[in-house]
Amino acid sequence: MPTSEIKESDKIYKIINARLLIEHEIVENAYLWFQNGKIIHPQNLFFSARRDADEIIDAKGLLVVPGFIDTQINGSYGIDFADYEEPVEVLQKNIDKVAKGLLQYGCTAFCPTVVSSAAEVYQKVLPLLNHRKGSATGGAEILGAHVEGPFISVLKKGAHKQAVFKDAKNGIKDFDEVYGPELLKGNKAVSIITMAPEIDGVCDAIPDLVARGITISMGHSACRIAEAEEAVTKGANSITHLFNAMQAFHHRDPGLIGVLGACDLPIPETSVGHPAPSSTSPDRKRPDPRPFYGLICDGVHVHPNSIRMAYYSHPTGAVLVTDTLSAAGLPSGIYQLGGSEVEVVEDGAAYIKGTTTLAGSTITIVQCIRNFRKFTNCPLVEAIEAATLHPARLLGIEDRKGTLNVGGDADLVFLDDTNGDIAVKRVFVAGEEVKL
Amino acid sequence: MPTSEIKESDKIYKIINARLLIEHEIVENAYLWFQNGKIIHPQNLFFSARRDADEIIDAKGLLVVPGFIDTQINGSYGIDFADYEEPVEVLQKNIDKVAKGLLQYGCTAFCPTVVSSAAEVYQKVLPLLNHRKGSATGGAEILGAHVEGPFISVLKKGAHKQAVFKDAKNGIKDFDEVYGPELLKGNKAVSIITMAPEIDGVCDAIPDLVARGITISMGHSACRIAEAEEAVTKGANSITHLFNAMQAFHHRDPGLIGVLGACDLPIPETSVGHPAPSSTSPDRKRPDPRPFYGLICDGVHVHPNSIRMAYYSHPTGAVLVTDTLSAAGLPSGIYQLGGSEVEVVEDGAAYIKGTTTLAGSTITIVQCIRNFRKFTNCPLVEAIEAATLHPARLLGIEDRKGTLNVGGDADLVFLDDTNGDIAVKRVFVAGEEVKL
Repeated sequence: MPTSEIKESDKIYKIINARLLIEHEIVENAYLWFQNGKIIHPQNLFFSARRDADEIIDAKGLLVVPGFIDTQINGSYGIDFADYEEPVEVLQKNIDKVAKGLLQYGCTAFCPTVVSSAAEVYQKVLPLLNHRKGSATGGAEILGAHVEGPFISVLKKGAHKQAVFKDAKNGIKDFDEVYGPELLKGNKAVSIITMAPEIDGVCDAIPDLVARGITISMGHSACRIAEAEEAVTKGANSITHLFNAMQAFHHRDPGLIGVLGACDLPIPETSVGHPAPSSTSPDRKRPDPRPFYGLICDGVHVHPNSIRMAYYSHPTGAVLVTDTLSAAGLPSGIYQLGGSEVEVVEDGAAYIKGTTTLAGSTITIVQCIRNFRKFTNCPLVEAIEAATLHPARLLGIEDRKGTLNVGGDADLVFLDDTNGDIAVKRVFVAGEEVKL
Repeated sequence: MPTSEIKESDKIYKIINARLLIEHEIVENAYLWFQNGKIIHPQNLFFSARRDADEIIDAKGLLVVPGFIDTQINGSYGIDFADYEEPVEVLQKNIDKVAKGLLQYGCTAFCPTVVSSAAEVYQKVLPLLNHRKGSATGGAEILGAHVEGPFISVLKKGAHKQAVFKDAKNGIKDFDEVYGPELLKGNKAVSIITMAPEIDGVCDAIPDLVARGITISMGHSACRIAEAEEAVTKGANSITHLFNAMQAFHHRDPGLIGVLGACDLPIPETSVGHPAPSSTSPDRKRPDPRPFYGLICDGVHVHPNSIRMAYYSHPTGAVLVTDTLSAAGLPSGIYQLGGSEVEVVEDGAAYIKGTTTLAGSTITIVQCIRNFRKFTNCPLVEAIEAATLHPARLLGIEDRKGTLNVGGDADLVFLDDTNGDIAVKRVFVAGEEVKL
């Protein structure tokens, strides 16, 4: 049938002249088809509907990869997701502004992150951060909130306000009490909880939280290796910004960092939520029982050599995060973050004013990929997977995110990777092209 | 010619029914030939001398591997290589006793190690620790001494006596002064010097020491990453007992440990003295510029998870060392080490009496291989290479040690590797079978 009669949403798109990232390889001169925001299989079309594409997109040799996923963003453009004093309409507008801004860096899905806050804050902001589909005009997909604290350690509080910290002596009841009714929606509302395994009651609550589909990440913690391994055994599958806000690696008790070297953890029975096996996995054929780990690859939060050691110890667990704060996208100066004064300096890092305590970064996800590749000397594909496939697996959503597989969301980034670098040239979210 | 007319030293031996470790693989049902203490090529024999073997050695299916090399042994059987008060004849007898005892564990070559001492000590003991060929009656080959200190840091002194520590403001002159004329013989007398890169003048002296064929190992050091990388650039190619007696790994300055994550070091122009390239090397085809690193794999000095992380970051750099002290081979109790009282406890570790400062181990090299394999989950071949090929490369002697290649010394260990473990069954040193 002629193209003019087809509804915009039913249109079939075909990308030509693309180099596609498929199954860990770059496939030259390939096609990609999508319709209704989903990647589709062309063969079914020809045989059942006898249709060809309605619109051809010429990638002109660019590298087409899945949209980037950022599981830790505190805010940008002067906006902090933990701010709650404005009217709901203003907060909503702020969230939309960030979601839209992220698209220009190729970030098509994210977990808005709320630092340790009082119950009243969560109850106001979490309903605004529920899962929401992405669109070219509305912004990147919201994957549900990442609540970082308040079940964390005063010893590793970073920029968090200790006054609101909690223990979980009453198990999941304490979690429901502080985060409020949103937590009952599970990962529709809360995708990730960052918690310290050594805090009273936290480990025992993990299975109940995992049963709601929530990802448990260990962080802001002074735990010992045994406590971290217990949390993993109970269902934690992530470490929040590895190296930052945890015990320094000591060789006789390597603490939370040492979980990357663990070899006695039980092998997972399912691949969902676990890193793929690699040459360093305890079992090289079955999913890796070690957690994923977030890395802030701005070159300031973590020394490049540390990034490299983590990556080579556990390559399929690396997840790039920006951990941006409200000052991202703004010039150097003094800003507010959750009630603290934060100073953004020239190199892009941000500190609690007058101290050397890091308060978050102002980096972009595409710059994280560039840095990660440079620091580790890894193939481009592996650097990209650390911002696509790995975070999708971490959240258990790799059936619809993080790959270019049929059935997945048509979140696409067109990269110019000539000259050994990458530059974002075109972005699609849910099949809609973004104006850059 | 009939066997009876052949001198014992000219006899040609042929090992049959062996599984041989050749070029990183286990070759089934293979033969190995040796004569005059050297591995020979059978083809040359047939064509030039038209001779067959004079003696057949039936390996009965055992795994035949190169003799183990231990680059750090302070002593055993109540003997400490830094003791010097006895008459020279007694010291010589003591050295022979240790050299002979090591053979039963498959250790066919070693670097007797002398802790930080005064000049008068070195000048008495170093002449006794010169390179010496191995034999079944005389013991394991002495590869030259490993002098650990005194150019090390008071901040990371371990069990060393601070009173004798030195700086090197006058460069190699300071080294010659403290170690004495033996140092002029280069690696005939001194195979390894452990030094702290941050000590005044130490880095600048490295090229002069390397020119004498001496291996430079960084250790007992509180250096920062930049200082360690400078030392490597100047010729240091080793880290002494990684993790022990150095700064804890901090992610923003990972110190000496962080060199394992280095990616900007200049690529070596020669493979001699450098780790082979691996999948984690900065250049995967050329020698790895990162140093080798000793590991005390007794499960006490270093947490198994730390061993695993180091290994996966830099697999071809791992070198297993026992770091045994005089108490090795003796029952639990209190002993002397370089003037300190040392307590040996049941699990095999040894501490400065009344403290938790480790003073060395009492482990055997074969137990180190077993532990390393268990901690890292690596293939048996890689665990064995960490005690054979890697230390030989470290010392630049892989043309004659650490492999079963033609031209190398016939230092051989026959291992029973059934049941997933390894047990030493027969040992040959320089072609002579050792009575176990």
